[in-house]
Amino acid sequence: MKTRTVKAYGAYAADQELALLTIDRRPLQPDDIQVEILYCGVCHSDIHYVRNHWGGAHYPAVPGHEIVGRVLDVGAQVTQFNIGDVVGVGVIVDSCQACTACQEGAEQYCDRHPIKTYGSPDRYTGGYTYGGYAQRITVRERFVFRIPQNLDISKVGPLLCAGITTYSPLKKWDVKAGDKVGVIGLGGLGHMGIKLAKAMGAEVTMITRSPDKAEDAKLLGADHVLFSTDHKAMREKASHFDFLLDTIPVNHDVNPYLRLLKYDSTLALVGAIEPLTSVDGSLLIRLGRRLVGSMIGGVEETQEMLDFCGKHNVLPEVEMISIQEINEAWERVVKGDVKYRFVIDMKSLKE
Amino acid sequence: MKTRTVKAYGAYAADQELALLTIDRRPLQPDDIQVEILYCGVCHSDIHYVRNHWGGAHYPAVPGHEIVGRVLDVGAQVTQFNIGDVVGVGVIVDSCQACTACQEGAEQYCDRHPIKTYGSPDRYTGGYTYGGYAQRITVRERFVFRIPQNLDISKVGPLLCAGITTYSPLKKWDVKAGDKVGVIGLGGLGHMGIKLAKAMGAEVTMITRSPDKAEDAKLLGADHVLFSTDHKAMREKASHFDFLLDTIPVNHDVNPYLRLLKYDSTLALVGAIEPLTSVDGSLLIRLGRRLVGSMIGGVEETQEMLDFCGKHNVLPEVEMISIQEINEAWERVVKGDVKYRFVIDMKSLKE
Repeated sequence: MKTRTVKAYGAYAADQELALLTIDRRPLQPDDIQVEILYCGVCHSDIHYVRNHWGGAHYPAVPGHEIVGRVLDVGAQVTQFNIGDVVGVGVIVDSCQACTACQEGAEQYCDRHPIKTYGSPDRYTGGYTYGGYAQRITVRERFVFRIPQNLDISKVGPLLCAGITTYSPLKKWDVKAGDKVGVIGLGGLGHMGIKLAKAMGAEVTMITRSPDKAEDAKLLGADHVLFSTDHKAMREKASHFDFLLDTIPVNHDVNPYLRLLKYDSTLALVGAIEPLTSVDGSLLIRLGRRLVGSMIGGVEETQEMLDFCGKHNVLPEVEMISIQEINEAWERVVKGDVKYRFVIDMKSLKE
Repeated sequence: MKTRTVKAYGAYAADQELALLTIDRRPLQPDDIQVEILYCGVCHSDIHYVRNHWGGAHYPAVPGHEIVGRVLDVGAQVTQFNIGDVVGVGVIVDSCQACTACQEGAEQYCDRHPIKTYGSPDRYTGGYTYGGYAQRITVRERFVFRIPQNLDISKVGPLLCAGITTYSPLKKWDVKAGDKVGVIGLGGLGHMGIKLAKAMGAEVTMITRSPDKAEDAKLLGADHVLFSTDHKAMREKASHFDFLLDTIPVNHDVNPYLRLLKYDSTLALVGAIEPLTSVDGSLLIRLGRRLVGSMIGGVEETQEMLDFCGKHNVLPEVEMISIQEINEAWERVVKGDVKYRFVIDMKSLKE
C-alpha cells in the first residue's frame, strides 16, 4: 500500500518536546475523505497520551483530536461531502459499526474499541493513527462532521471534544429550560458546560474552589457562583440541583457535590478517569441519586451538537497559537493557564 | 387527645432485649385506618434502629415495617377500604403530600422527610411512631395497601420492604424479558431480587462470594451463579450485564461489579448505606456506566409491586416465628442465618 507522507508535529518519546516530523497517511479509500487541516484544538488528553501518562503510547506520537479543515479529496463511495467543504474530525475516526453500541449510535463505546484519532491501530497502514497536529488527515466519511456555516471555524475545533463531552450528558439527562444545573470546575470542559447548559435554557451555577474564577464564570454566562469551600453556602444548596456536570479532571471527593442534588437526580463525571475518594452509598440511596460517567458522544450526537451550537451560536473561548508555540502552550495547559482552549492555526505548519 | 393503649414488643434502651410493653396509638383520624396486625416481617433495619446503630433512636422503640393485617375500623373520610379488608403497611406511614417528590409519587424522598412507620415524630400523639411488633396500628389511608387475594397473607409482609426495595430499581431501569440481570448478595433483599427479576422475564445471575449459596440461588430461580472470588469467571463476564442489583448491606468494593456492566448500564445500590471503598471514575466514564441508589419505593409503586406479585405469584421465603422468639431471631438475622426472612405471627401476642 502506497502511503503519502505529510508534515506533522509530534514526539518520538514520552520525555521529548514536540517537533516537526514526517508521518505516513494512508491512501484514500473509497469511503474516505482527505482533509486539509486548518485548525486543531489542544486537549489535555494530547499531553497525557504523548507523555504516556496512561501507558500504552506508541511513538512517534502525533496528537490532536479537535480538527477543523477543508475537504481536499473524496473516495469514490463518498456521498455526503464535496471537495472544498469545511468539516470537522473529533476523538474517534472509526468503529466496528456492527456491535449494539455502534448500531445504537454510541460508537464511543464500541465493543471492539473505537479507533481513536491518534494512538489506535490503523487498519490500513499497519501502524498507529496520527492526530491533527499535521497538514492533512484521511478519515472514513462516517466520522467526518459538517460545520454549520455561521460558526467561526477558527473556534470550532474544541467543540469536537470539549463540546461533545459536555453536551452528551446534558442531553442524556434531559436538561431543559428552567432546570437548575451546576457545573463543577472551570476549565476547557467546564466553560463549555456553562455555555451549553445556558443555551439549553438552564439556570446555571458555576461551582468552584477558586474565588478568582467567579468573574469569568459570570462572563461565560453562569447565573450564580457557588464556592465549594464555603460550607454554609454548600449546606444551603443541599438537594437544590436537577443536574450536576463534574468536570474536575482528577480524583476528588464527590460527596459534597452529591449532597447538592435533588432526589432522583444525576451527577455526571466527565473528567476524573481515575479512582475517586470514597463515595457515600447513603447519599445515593437515601434520595435515589445517581453518579454516572460519560465519554465524548456518538457520531450522530456529535453532529447534533454541532448543529445545536450553530443554532445558538455557541463557541468556546480560544487562544490561537502557531504550531511552533505548542510546547509552551502545553506547559500552560498543565498549569491551567489558558482561557479556555488553545487552537493551533495550521497555516503555521507550511508545506 | 385521648390515645388508646395496645400491647407491643419493644425496648427501652439500645442494649436491652425486646420485651412486652404497652404503647399509645393515636385515636382514629377521619382519613385513618386502624389495622389489627396479623403478621409482621423482621427487617435488619429493625435491629439497626432499636440498637441505635444509626443514632437518633427514640425509646421505647417498637420496630416492624412489614405489616399485614385486617381493617378493624375506618375514619369518616376513608373511601378505599372497608372493615375486614386484608391490608398492608410498609416503611412509611405519611409524607407532606405537597412537595415535588410527593406529587411525583416518590413519597420516600419527601422534601420534609417521610414519616416512617417507627421512630418518626407522630403528628398526633406528640411522641414517636411505633411499628408493627404490636397488636394494632393506625395509619393514614393513603399509606395502606390492598393485598391481592391470591397471595398467602402469612408471607406477604416482607414484600412491603424487601419486595419494593428490589422491585423499584428493576422497574425504574426498565428490566424486561431477555435482559441479563445480576443480583449481588443473597439475603432478604437478594432473594426477592432474583424472584422479581425472573418474574419480569430476565435471565438472572446470582453473584456471590459463597459457594454454599449456589444451590439455593438456583432453587430461587436464578439461571446462573457467578462467584465474585473467581477472577477468571468475572473477567469472562466483563461488560455482560444489562443491570445489576447490589444488595450487599455493608461497605464493599463495587469496582469488580461495575466491570460486569455493559456500556450505558446501571448498578443500583439498595443495601450499603455507608461510605463505599473507592469507586473508579474510569469504569464509569469509559463505558458510560451508572452507579445509582434506590430506597424502598413510592406509594403507587408499592401497590403496583403488590399487584405484580399477585399476578406472578411472587412471595418471599419465610420462616414463621412467635413474638416471644424475636430476640433469638434477631441474633440469627445478624448472623445471616435465615432463609430468607422471619415473619412474626401476631396471634402469639395475645390481648
